[in-house]
Amino acid sequence: MELTVAEIAEMVGGEAAGDLGRPIRGAAAFDSAGADDITFAMSSKFEKKLAACAAGAVIVSRKPALDNTSCCLIRVDNPQLAFARLLPHFYPPARQAPGVSPSAQIGEDFTCGQALSVAAFAVIGNRVTCGDRVTIHPSTVIGDDVTIGDDVLIYPHVTILAGCRIGSRVTIHAGTVIGSDGFGFAPDGERYQKIPQVGTVQIDDDVEIGAVNTIDRAALGKTWIQRGVKTDNLVHIAHNVTVGENTILVAQVGIAGSTNIGRHAILLGKVGVSGHLNVGDNAIIGNMSGVGKDVPAGAIVSGAPAMAHTTWRRVHRDFPKLPEMKKRIAELEKRLAALENEIQARD
Amino acid sequence: MELTVAEIAEMVGGEAAGDLGRPIRGAAAFDSAGADDITFAMSSKFEKKLAACAAGAVIVSRKPALDNTSCCLIRVDNPQLAFARLLPHFYPPARQAPGVSPSAQIGEDFTCGQALSVAAFAVIGNRVTCGDRVTIHPSTVIGDDVTIGDDVLIYPHVTILAGCRIGSRVTIHAGTVIGSDGFGFAPDGERYQKIPQVGTVQIDDDVEIGAVNTIDRAALGKTWIQRGVKTDNLVHIAHNVTVGENTILVAQVGIAGSTNIGRHAILLGKVGVSGHLNVGDNAIIGNMSGVGKDVPAGAIVSGAPAMAHTTWRRVHRDFPKLPEMKKRIAELEKRLAALENEIQARD
Amino acid sequence: MELTVAEIAEMVGGEAAGDLGRPIRGAAAFDSAGADDITFAMSSKFEKKLAACAAGAVIVSRKPALDNTSCCLIRVDNPQLAFARLLPHFYPPARQAPGVSPSAQIGEDFTCGQALSVAAFAVIGNRVTCGDRVTIHPSTVIGDDVTIGDDVLIYPHVTILAGCRIGSRVTIHAGTVIGSDGFGFAPDGERYQKIPQVGTVQIDDDVEIGAVNTIDRAALGKTWIQRGVKTDNLVHIAHNVTVGENTILVAQVGIAGSTNIGRHAILLGKVGVSGHLNVGDNAIIGNMSGVGKDVPAGAIVSGAPAMAHTTWRRVHRDFPKLPEMKKRIAELEKRLAALENEIQARD
Repeated sequence: MELTVAEIAEMVGGEAAGDLGRPIRGAAAFDSAGADDITFAMSSKFEKKLAACAAGAVIVSRKPALDNTSCCLIRVDNPQLAFARLLPHFYPPARQAPGVSPSAQIGEDFTCGQALSVAAFAVIGNRVTCGDRVTIHPSTVIGDDVTIGDDVLIYPHVTILAGCRIGSRVTIHAGTVIGSDGFGFAPDGERYQKIPQVGTVQIDDDVEIGAVNTIDRAALGKTWIQRGVKTDNLVHIAHNVTVGENTILVAQVGIAGSTNIGRHAILLGKVGVSGHLNVGDNAIIGNMSGVGKDVPAGAIVSGAPAMAHTTWRRVHRDFPKLPEMKKRIAELEKRLAALENEIQARD
Repeated sequence: MELTVAEIAEMVGGEAAGDLGRPIRGAAAFDSAGADDITFAMSSKFEKKLAACAAGAVIVSRKPALDNTSCCLIRVDNPQLAFARLLPHFYPPARQAPGVSPSAQIGEDFTCGQALSVAAFAVIGNRVTCGDRVTIHPSTVIGDDVTIGDDVLIYPHVTILAGCRIGSRVTIHAGTVIGSDGFGFAPDGERYQKIPQVGTVQIDDDVEIGAVNTIDRAALGKTWIQRGVKTDNLVHIAHNVTVGENTILVAQVGIAGSTNIGRHAILLGKVGVSGHLNVGDNAIIGNMSGVGKDVPAGAIVSGAPAMAHTTWRRVHRDFPKLPEMKKRIAELEKRLAALENEIQARD
Repeated sequence: MELTVAEIAEMVGGEAAGDLGRPIRGAAAFDSAGADDITFAMSSKFEKKLAACAAGAVIVSRKPALDNTSCCLIRVDNPQLAFARLLPHFYPPARQAPGVSPSAQIGEDFTCGQALSVAAFAVIGNRVTCGDRVTIHPSTVIGDDVTIGDDVLIYPHVTILAGCRIGSRVTIHAGTVIGSDGFGFAPDGERYQKIPQVGTVQIDDDVEIGAVNTIDRAALGKTWIQRGVKTDNLVHIAHNVTVGENTILVAQVGIAGSTNIGRHAILLGKVGVSGHLNVGDNAIIGNMSGVGKDVPAGAIVSGAPAMAHTTWRRVHRDFPKLPEMKKRIAELEKRLAALENEIQARD
């Protein structure tokens, strides 16, 4: 899988400098790449360390003044993106063998396109529809009446319950549960009566769902993960939530019922969002924030309770000084009382 | 499954007003229900919007003055509860086919009641006992010496390890693990020695466990989930915890070892409770709270660290003002010092 | 499995007092142990309650003055450790039957040592290597090119994806996913381009991984869990993280990408650590803390944002007083202004 620097530059639409014929045989991280490897500079911080980089070639930005280095440079607009596109050349993804394992179990009225791959001990219910090039890993369970688009990759131990709809070019990582009942119970004085959860989950095209997510089916209607959403691991999405296009949910995020998350938002690790809220398009919610009211489009909020991130940075800085502040207040009170007494005594 | 308004009113013990013969063919949410659908008003907020509701009929409370609407009304004491009971009529739950799949595997000395359903690739250990109408979904693993009551529903990829006891009318959602080892290690200077976890988990009647919970077996004795408890997804319950009757644990709650949670308590999303604590009956613990000491019965607490909810509301409101407060203190110190100097100068 | 007090004392290297021939037939917790049971005193708190203990024998520390009790005492250096070592005598661990289940599926070029046990519906990929005495529970999925050491125990529904390396004496609890893709996406203007995750996960000897953990494979290189690490349930470890030897991660901890956790550290429940950080050796991070910057070796930090634990204790104490502090500041401002006016009026 050897490529020359010139060939790589052409593949990624970049401009190469240095020994264009130099052979590159692998890809590695900036700090561990060797003379046969290509790497990339994630930011100007890495570009400043180019002289210390042992890689055979480095993909860098188009900023000038990166010349005082011995390694070959390939200049592109977005080095991370170029590297991401190059990686599969050196590490071709392993594909599960096509065909249906004799130890998989498929229900009635199954419809599928070309190049289906279903591994051992996968269970597919009745009236399931799959598009082309769907890959189902071992021990996956797919319920009745599920529909799955083209080029879908489902890892082991995934559960997709009855009636859910999965778009095309969707990846679902191991252990994830899609379509479990929403958490709906009506208090009946002392006890709780279950409210049947009769809606579904719809996952649109180009979504990637991390490992061990739980995405509950709607009470009525649908829980909706829109096109291009990416979720990390251990994310919880409750019933009737909508997550807008190209939004990012980082690990251990939890979103309560009926909340709408806008497009192109980013919810960082461990964020919790209460139910029946709106988080606007392009909002960014900082790590471990607790969101208890609507977040406007474009807002950057942090903290629990969530507040403007600029405010949070100052609150965050002053929070450890709280005991000192309390002491200073007590001191002020003492001094002020003394002064008041003195003034009064003079009358 | 068509019903008239009058028939529905009778089913839910309500009082109907409007066109009693009107046919209802489905159930839907308040905002999306059409002329053939019944819906319900969750609160007075919805009752105020009745004029804008397109549903054929609406289940409402028994409050007066809800007459200026064109849709049929069915008055009941608890609209949500009535709607919950009506839903299965329009959305009859799918039941897994009865019988034991030839591709399930069942150990020795298995005892079961009537209408058992065991799906493909389920594994049941030795000396397991099941009651009547137990439904076990595909790829579930049940260890040796487990006992299961009547009317139990176990979703795919659930693991119930050896010796655990499950009551009647229990539902366990996909991916949940019951009976994993409690987290017990004795520090041995540098390393940790595992403390064998030789207790069990007991889950009483009428419990519903959400998707991907982890409920650890006791070190000695039992971890105990009492009657009527409902847990949401990704909840962690450590060894030797007791959760009292009809208590609610919302998503991503974590309860550390040997803690007792009382009856009819509510722990909202992402709450963490430290070990060896007591949370009293009817306590309510707000979203994302961190509980590090006992919570009295009936208390409502919030925040991390948890404090009285009424206090928390004010703390929550003032927290973003912390930097401003710090500035005001510095200003006060300056002004007070100036005044002190001035007074002194006059002497 | 009956033992005399004298025999137990010899087994645990302790010094027995009381009726040395007394027969002990079981082990139980301090509060529930009966006349046939042995128990242990976890701390001096329990040692003070010895008079009320109904156990036949109690393992205690070597402190003097524990004589005024009727039960037999066995004095050791570390009672918990001695009890942990004694427990398997009374509760011998159940071992899965040796051999490979005819309903397991094993790929090509499988290599294994002695006493392999593979249960029903386990799937083992191609070119997998196992050492001696490896036990694989039902419905476990092990990908291609995985290597596993000696004396490894893998519970049901575990997923170990291609190329991961597991050391010796490792236990992995149910539902855990090892080797899922790291969460790496390059923003491409509006959308996100997946960055192939081509590294692996390496888990060293003597590690125990709790139930339903997610340990992502590295983008490049490896995610590395070093010797002796113990993790509780629902822990998330992102790509390229290193967790140092004998470190403890309590339930629901999340560690973001490329962070290094030192040796012998303790991260308590629900802690979140941001990416690209260093947490030093022997550091302790309190429950629910949010770590956004490096933590020095040996530091004890708490809170979100994390601060020195001693500071946090005082912040924690004063936090509920924030509204009162705000009121006191306003009061000070009013009184000070009045005083300033008075002084000015006198001029």
